[in-house]
Amino acid sequence: MNEDELVARIRRMAEPGARRRLVLGIGDDCAIYRPRAGEELVFTTDLFIEDVHYRLKNEQAGVLGRRALARSLSDIAAMGATPRFCLVSLALSKRTDHKWAEAFYRGLLALARESGTALAGGDFSHAARVVCDVMVCGSVARGKALRRDGARVGDAIYVSGPLGGWRHRAEIVPRLDIGRRIASKATAAMDISDGLSTDLWRLCIASGVAASLDGPLPVLAGATLDDALNGGEDYELLYTAPQKVRVPGMRIGSIVEGRAGDVFLMGLKVKARGYDHLSSSRR
Amino acid sequence: MNEDELVARIRRMAEPGARRRLVLGIGDDCAIYRPRAGEELVFTTDLFIEDVHYRLKNEQAGVLGRRALARSLSDIAAMGATPRFCLVSLALSKRTDHKWAEAFYRGLLALARESGTALAGGDFSHAARVVCDVMVCGSVARGKALRRDGARVGDAIYVSGPLGGWRHRAEIVPRLDIGRRIASKATAAMDISDGLSTDLWRLCIASGVAASLDGPLPVLAGATLDDALNGGEDYELLYTAPQKVRVPGMRIGSIVEGRAGDVFLMGLKVKARGYDHLSSSRR
Repeated sequence: MNEDELVARIRRMAEPGARRRLVLGIGDDCAIYRPRAGEELVFTTDLFIEDVHYRLKNEQAGVLGRRALARSLSDIAAMGATPRFCLVSLALSKRTDHKWAEAFYRGLLALARESGTALAGGDFSHAARVVCDVMVCGSVARGKALRRDGARVGDAIYVSGPLGGWRHRAEIVPRLDIGRRIASKATAAMDISDGLSTDLWRLCIASGVAASLDGPLPVLAGATLDDALNGGEDYELLYTAPQKVRVPGMRIGSIVEGRAGDVFLMGLKVKARGYDHLSSSRR
Repeated sequence: MNEDELVARIRRMAEPGARRRLVLGIGDDCAIYRPRAGEELVFTTDLFIEDVHYRLKNEQAGVLGRRALARSLSDIAAMGATPRFCLVSLALSKRTDHKWAEAFYRGLLALARESGTALAGGDFSHAARVVCDVMVCGSVARGKALRRDGARVGDAIYVSGPLGGWRHRAEIVPRLDIGRRIASKATAAMDISDGLSTDLWRLCIASGVAASLDGPLPVLAGATLDDALNGGEDYELLYTAPQKVRVPGMRIGSIVEGRAGDVFLMGLKVKARGYDHLSSSRR
């Protein structure tokens, strides 16, 4: 099977999916999207690479396809947005044939349908190791997108679910529902992809505040304190809201005065030591 | 230098560039774009991979950065659109340090400024070989985007410049000006990235027509007939327009009746044998 035949097959697999305001999908130089009045569009892209994010021999193609899309949908959720469409770039290796590619797309398209995300296009190539990059465009009412820079002293800090999730990576469910529910309530939000200690530090740097973790840290069974603070690939949302505002999720602390980026646990400073994508190691 | 420091440095390098309607750029979970009334948005993404598209030791980082963006801008040009912003995913290898990455971004950002494309975000990772994926969003008046499927029997076929360009890959200049000039005149358009024979076949398949190459084929000095028909990375535009409509470029043939996808040269059928990205070889 050559490139054009694979594109045609994936196009047929994608067509039952949501199209919404997608004027033109797979098969031209570009996809075309017609924005609706009053909407703002949010954009994110995430790399997903063999031997960096997963081992090919340990994972089913369909699970990998689902995870590739879930990573970007988690960023859309963190903005309080609704996904509209995605572009998928995929470089196949000699160990992944067209059947592997089709299974990868079946997994990706299942999550695309669940979340209302149309597959609008992408690119194919080949490489020594499988490489995938998924761009997702989402939609949000004008001025309503959740950002990292709005946390204020006195806000409570929440997570959408238990941490230490890297033990259960096959089961990522992007928190789109929670993102939309907190969209008009939270002062700041982001997704936890590199570990709570690193991502809370980033939120505090963006907002110019410090944080104190004083609630119990919700964790998955068997997760250690290190898993909860420094584990990557949690894909839960981290957000802040004024103390009196009711939001879903679990309260883990408060925004406090202090040097921007400082995070404290029981009064002791926590070092940001989550995943660094450039060095492929803990900080 | 860790990931957050590199992101902060690239953010400072990018800020003098065009922002236009970009509400939020580098540094959050997503970038935010506010569409203007009456515009349609076009989206494309292109992989650019070490040892597939180039050899690291043969190329300067800045030239590679420029080419990585130029590949996607060529698709924007083919839609008759104006680029607005890009997302850049980059996986570095052990042989490319932060200085290499900065030089790569300097080259990319120079073309971004020339073309009015804001760098809105992206992703970093690492890999055994350098991998880059560039998504560009462009803007076009509603219903005015050039597509592949509009060629009609009797139309003339044009290219925007000489073919066989793979000999001069460092000098890609995306044909954004020509794209905009033909936007209200051409019936179909695409960019020539995989060779004239393959891309004209694709245009004819999409439009349900055949093509006859009867004009002289414009080529760069030293290019052979095979280079002109089957060379990749030309990045010129291929487009059709009614015979009486004046358009820029060089006329190379006509759309004719026949089996969809058939391409003839002096009455002989031309086989589509340009680059196949999956097999890494000629067809």
